[in-house]
Amino acid sequence: MKKKSAIELIAGTDIRGERQAWAARYDAVRAYTEALAAPLSAEDQTVQSMPDVSPTKWHRAHVSWFFENFLLVPHLSGYRPFDPDFGYLFNSYYETVGPRHPRPARGLVSRPGIEAIARYRAHVDDGMQRLIRTASDAPWGALATLIELGLNHEEQHQELLLMDILHVLSCNTLDPAYGCPPGGGEDSVLPALEWVNIGGGLRQIGHAGDGFAFDNETPRHRVWLEPFLLASRLVTCGEYLAFIGDEGYRRPDLWKSEGWATVNAQNWDAPLYWRNDGPGWSVFTLEGRRPIDPAQPVRHVSFYEADAYARWAGKRLPTEAEWEIAATEQAEVLDQLAGAVWQWTASPYVAYPGFRPPAGAIGEYNGKFMSNQMVLRGGASITPAGHARATYRNFFPPNARWCVGGIRLAEDAS
Amino acid sequence: MKKKSAIELIAGTDIRGERQAWAARYDAVRAYTEALAAPLSAEDQTVQSMPDVSPTKWHRAHVSWFFENFLLVPHLSGYRPFDPDFGYLFNSYYETVGPRHPRPARGLVSRPGIEAIARYRAHVDDGMQRLIRTASDAPWGALATLIELGLNHEEQHQELLLMDILHVLSCNTLDPAYGCPPGGGEDSVLPALEWVNIGGGLRQIGHAGDGFAFDNETPRHRVWLEPFLLASRLVTCGEYLAFIGDEGYRRPDLWKSEGWATVNAQNWDAPLYWRNDGPGWSVFTLEGRRPIDPAQPVRHVSFYEADAYARWAGKRLPTEAEWEIAATEQAEVLDQLAGAVWQWTASPYVAYPGFRPPAGAIGEYNGKFMSNQMVLRGGASITPAGHARATYRNFFPPNARWCVGGIRLAEDAS
Amino acid sequence: MKKKSAIELIAGTDIRGERQAWAARYDAVRAYTEALAAPLSAEDQTVQSMPDVSPTKWHRAHVSWFFENFLLVPHLSGYRPFDPDFGYLFNSYYETVGPRHPRPARGLVSRPGIEAIARYRAHVDDGMQRLIRTASDAPWGALATLIELGLNHEEQHQELLLMDILHVLSCNTLDPAYGCPPGGGEDSVLPALEWVNIGGGLRQIGHAGDGFAFDNETPRHRVWLEPFLLASRLVTCGEYLAFIGDEGYRRPDLWKSEGWATVNAQNWDAPLYWRNDGPGWSVFTLEGRRPIDPAQPVRHVSFYEADAYARWAGKRLPTEAEWEIAATEQAEVLDQLAGAVWQWTASPYVAYPGFRPPAGAIGEYNGKFMSNQMVLRGGASITPAGHARATYRNFFPPNARWCVGGIRLAEDAS
Amino acid sequence: MKKKSAIELIAGTDIRGERQAWAARYDAVRAYTEALAAPLSAEDQTVQSMPDVSPTKWHRAHVSWFFENFLLVPHLSGYRPFDPDFGYLFNSYYETVGPRHPRPARGLVSRPGIEAIARYRAHVDDGMQRLIRTASDAPWGALATLIELGLNHEEQHQELLLMDILHVLSCNTLDPAYGCPPGGGEDSVLPALEWVNIGGGLRQIGHAGDGFAFDNETPRHRVWLEPFLLASRLVTCGEYLAFIGDEGYRRPDLWKSEGWATVNAQNWDAPLYWRNDGPGWSVFTLEGRRPIDPAQPVRHVSFYEADAYARWAGKRLPTEAEWEIAATEQAEVLDQLAGAVWQWTASPYVAYPGFRPPAGAIGEYNGKFMSNQMVLRGGASITPAGHARATYRNFFPPNARWCVGGIRLAEDAS
Repeated sequence: MKKKSAIELIAGTDIRGERQAWAARYDAVRAYTEALAAPLSAEDQTVQSMPDVSPTKWHRAHVSWFFENFLLVPHLSGYRPFDPDFGYLFNSYYETVGPRHPRPARGLVSRPGIEAIARYRAHVDDGMQRLIRTASDAPWGALATLIELGLNHEEQHQELLLMDILHVLSCNTLDPAYGCPPGGGEDSVLPALEWVNIGGGLRQIGHAGDGFAFDNETPRHRVWLEPFLLASRLVTCGEYLAFIGDEGYRRPDLWKSEGWATVNAQNWDAPLYWRNDGPGWSVFTLEGRRPIDPAQPVRHVSFYEADAYARWAGKRLPTEAEWEIAATEQAEVLDQLAGAVWQWTASPYVAYPGFRPPAGAIGEYNGKFMSNQMVLRGGASITPAGHARATYRNFFPPNARWCVGGIRLAEDAS
Repeated sequence: MKKKSAIELIAGTDIRGERQAWAARYDAVRAYTEALAAPLSAEDQTVQSMPDVSPTKWHRAHVSWFFENFLLVPHLSGYRPFDPDFGYLFNSYYETVGPRHPRPARGLVSRPGIEAIARYRAHVDDGMQRLIRTASDAPWGALATLIELGLNHEEQHQELLLMDILHVLSCNTLDPAYGCPPGGGEDSVLPALEWVNIGGGLRQIGHAGDGFAFDNETPRHRVWLEPFLLASRLVTCGEYLAFIGDEGYRRPDLWKSEGWATVNAQNWDAPLYWRNDGPGWSVFTLEGRRPIDPAQPVRHVSFYEADAYARWAGKRLPTEAEWEIAATEQAEVLDQLAGAVWQWTASPYVAYPGFRPPAGAIGEYNGKFMSNQMVLRGGASITPAGHARATYRNFFPPNARWCVGGIRLAEDAS
Repeated sequence: MKKKSAIELIAGTDIRGERQAWAARYDAVRAYTEALAAPLSAEDQTVQSMPDVSPTKWHRAHVSWFFENFLLVPHLSGYRPFDPDFGYLFNSYYETVGPRHPRPARGLVSRPGIEAIARYRAHVDDGMQRLIRTASDAPWGALATLIELGLNHEEQHQELLLMDILHVLSCNTLDPAYGCPPGGGEDSVLPALEWVNIGGGLRQIGHAGDGFAFDNETPRHRVWLEPFLLASRLVTCGEYLAFIGDEGYRRPDLWKSEGWATVNAQNWDAPLYWRNDGPGWSVFTLEGRRPIDPAQPVRHVSFYEADAYARWAGKRLPTEAEWEIAATEQAEVLDQLAGAVWQWTASPYVAYPGFRPPAGAIGEYNGKFMSNQMVLRGGASITPAGHARATYRNFFPPNARWCVGGIRLAEDAS
Repeated sequence: MKKKSAIELIAGTDIRGERQAWAARYDAVRAYTEALAAPLSAEDQTVQSMPDVSPTKWHRAHVSWFFENFLLVPHLSGYRPFDPDFGYLFNSYYETVGPRHPRPARGLVSRPGIEAIARYRAHVDDGMQRLIRTASDAPWGALATLIELGLNHEEQHQELLLMDILHVLSCNTLDPAYGCPPGGGEDSVLPALEWVNIGGGLRQIGHAGDGFAFDNETPRHRVWLEPFLLASRLVTCGEYLAFIGDEGYRRPDLWKSEGWATVNAQNWDAPLYWRNDGPGWSVFTLEGRRPIDPAQPVRHVSFYEADAYARWAGKRLPTEAEWEIAATEQAEVLDQLAGAVWQWTASPYVAYPGFRPPAGAIGEYNGKFMSNQMVLRGGASITPAGHARATYRNFFPPNARWCVGGIRLAEDAS
């Protein structure tokens, strides 16, 4: 059965209406990226604070290069690339597309500046709108699939842009604020903690059917689960403070061996962006430095910290299959499934049985990262609305803290 | 049901006979370690060629410290430790036992020398024989469990000793030989390659019942498998040469992203210990440098190489569950299951569902290493006879090449 | 004898006229800094391409901090620092002034941006003009000395700003140009090479008497020189190409041991910014990429390269005493003494006999850098007019190439 | 005037007697090396504790390779090298002789072991005695010069062997002792401190005339000195404790910039091998750990520490010219000139005016190290008797502490 995109479902079989819907969705996603960058100065958009971080202006250009390289150059007749050198500068990791600027050196490139990048974006947008209007019907299905991928890709970079700029600004002792982040004010009402019982047995996880999903969510496949309990809400800052207070960062028995080595090598004693100000802890956020709110979900912890916390609490992290089954079958009784933090699972990021990446450079999108990373599930306050879903597999190395990782506990049903 | 050790099974309920059996097994394992070290000079036994490698004399001392620390000191009344400083020098990674000499600096410790270590071993052996003879019956069961663990631990270090000394000698341009390794001459007869069909369904893997197993092999638990095919024999050097000849080390599309970075950072172009001598390839072995034998299983490849080879061959690596089920259900039709090389699987090393490490320092044995490692199954030519089993989980980081890793291919049943 | 500044000499004893002269000189120096930064975008001014390089906007702020910290805060009553946090951000290396932002992280600070820094400069300028006008006569002499130091300090940073931005822009594969650098077009007429004979004997070097000099140029002292010959002009790119063509970068016998190690570790095969474009060599300059002009003095070589070149040519580098005596006694027969490149000498940078740094934080200006650096003499095309003099001691580590180092040869008189 | 060696001077023109004298001197030097190594086990002789340190057995082999490579192979007809691979293993840094084993990996080479090296030494000794007896008279002068160089070279390695083994043993928490070092018991009687006045003027330093000297001590040349005062004895441990107690390691104003960076990066708070045991300080020596003796000269300080101490004391370090003139002209009033510690000078290690290294590989002996090193003068307790002299230039990088560096103060005559 052919998979249908969200817009096809909306637009039905009316191809003209479908194209209009894509054009509108394209504009909306692209505009949102620019809105996220708008509070940032040219200087803010230039800095790369560590190799994992990319400058804001790089994000803005790279997502445009994706459309230019995978859609406009091969499919829009007469399209002239904005600048032939941009392929080198703004390719992220597509080895088969050609050589590229080294990732840790993205912050060394002052030009093109933000105005040139705005022009680049406009040039690509113009081309994309032309392509959407003028492509003949025959290849349209394949193009729509690529456009949908490009927009989901750009949404991923919208989240990365915010993750990255928080890290950039955190390197400045002046504590400069980004401004008011998307996702709105946090809700300080702490949901009650319940332990939700999920039955075991043979289940299916992964994406199938209509609607967009990344290749790593497929194929849908059978897994065997034993019964388990899942916490109805996330671990809070207040609970995490108890872990800190109980010497959680000083007890090797709580930690994986590599986690313990990292704790000591990097002198971890709290989540990233936390600072002990004497009377209490504060945290650096996109809105500047703020006191810790004990009712909020803890964020910016690594897998190692999540795992150590769970051991300290006498629980464990859920597997990704457990998380997905619970989120599918018991969504109504689980709080904070998405919209607060990504939730570390106990599952290393590997291919699903039968996984086949697409042919060509697009096949590099996900599969080649399947080593030394852990899966996170859910979605964060900075994840664009509508981007994530129950089958979504986010992934980061187990020591990563600049991503918005938090903790939901599980335990075996006895 | 209480688990029984191999010797209990043999010795039945006759505790005196059981003790004699343990004393004999203890002597045999300890003597084998000394036999493995015997061809090595004091200088050979002192060198540490990289942080992952330990000096031979350190291995000889550390396995003795294990018995001294976990059995003699707590359980043999009147036992006097050979040297109170040895706890610091020869603790490997037991954080909860106390501070220890840093691993990368093991090669800086010239004293105690090999003669002092021989005296240390004799002192511990004397204590252990006394303990086996004189321990009262009440704690005997618990002691026997620890003795069995200590002997299996020493067998693991027998293999490490050989792995490590091969690396040490390989750093010497004179190509010095260790001598005749255990496991005897290799058999150059190449078994035919068959693809063995294994049915899917709900199965169980992991250890249960009588006989020794490490904690990481438990608990036995249910897994769901889809039907698959497994190669009846290992990938050979000749087959691997075809991968090299087809630019396997130059094609990023074959590699995981971190693997590709390693290929380039470390200039990999063949398995570890291989050298291109112009007319052909040679390999450095415990017996010195030798021409490549195309019929032999390829060894000393990393997970990344095994994975890239499989992708090049249009196949994949088996998961550890697939390997174990095949090795259990179809052992008679599979060649080279053990005794040649450890076989990389597609499975990251994680806890089995319901896994609980033992309390105390012994709990650090396995569980804390469950991140950023991959599982290998089978057994190598240098693995002590009788040490491995179908449920055995060996593990190394995906870039490790000094362990004896090889390749068995799998593919989905269509 | 009290030392007199240049302006005192001009202005004589008329203190009011002297103050006007200082005010004018202050404005001129400050305006020149801004003129140098003017062609650079906010993005250009933010990047730090290696730890030795500082962002343009940091240079603009740091030189202002120097005036604020050493003149305005202690001496202008009622002065309010522009921002109390700037002391932390813009202190370069004055340990005794307090903690400071780590040098390699200067490129991580996006705020204050260039507009805020322009306001900071205006605020300091306003204060300085007020101080020059209103300071009472009693401390005026001491203040004038500090103002003169501050202006010479800013001139040094004018040169650093250009050195650094060249390095920043060179990291961009687009070869972006700074624009038209100061110093004007280079003169391609190659002066004839003469060997100027300088007699030996007891001489004096170092600064004494009227006019500004840095502390490291004092005290003037006696040195014994043997007679020697000095090249009347600099080594050219054409001559250096012959060294490259004669395998100069492949012959260990030409190099100091540490230089040879650097050649191999960093794969040096030509001066910094040179590139072999196949048919010929090009060089990246402030005006963009250009073909090598064989008549121009070679620039952006390290001491190691200068020393190796001299050995290859059968000559040697002059000592700093030789250079200074020649430049003083034979200036009229020596070409390119200043205004082209700084000239590496054979002299490590050490204190002159009897050297005493000033008390307080200003004493950190020069003395503490007197280890592992070599002295360069002369002046470069990007050195502000009037900044250098015959006694001027520039210094950089022997492997530094981003400074404008070139080569003048010497040899013993036979 | 032809330079005469020590033995020529003794033996006069009787060539046969001269050869016997050389043979005897050769035996004596070679036997002393073996005597120094005798207390060390095979394990001790194998370890390399840092890249600057070489294993004892490497020293024993390298000095033999020097004779084999520079004397036996070119000059003893029929000589067969002991093992052709040894040239690769035991070449230290002679680039023009060919490729060599990397220095930081000397500790990875377990074979040849100490017995094979003893055979190698005997083989070379046999050849050398044959060469001394049988070389024809014509080349004898040149050969004698090389033999003398080889013996002085071996004496340098005798000192290095002791320096290095102290460092090796210091890495062992068991504090193992080498045994009784040469140089005998230290004398705890503290000489009175006098300030010896040395007049200024035109002097000559460097070696000329008869007797052996290294090339870097030549040519003898004129220098101008201002009058100065030199301390009649070395700085003691007791005096250095006062520097530590006065926060000497915490005050940046006392340190060169690179020295201060090293203090902080390596957490220096006392000389190398010192340890604060609570009630007092102890020091690790070749005889094991001992309490600090306040009357003994401080040793194992770097140039940076010597320089900081001098600044703290309101004095300075002497230049090497000052030291040599004082040691020549005022030897009778200066204590501890040699035989205790090498004395850091304020002089970077550079070529003397007119310095010409010999042609060929021997020319690599000294000259190529003339960058980023400081000169030490005098001689240490572990320096072989008769090895050093007033013109002798020892040199180490300014942060080196494993060499036996100490402090003699100077100051300007007012």
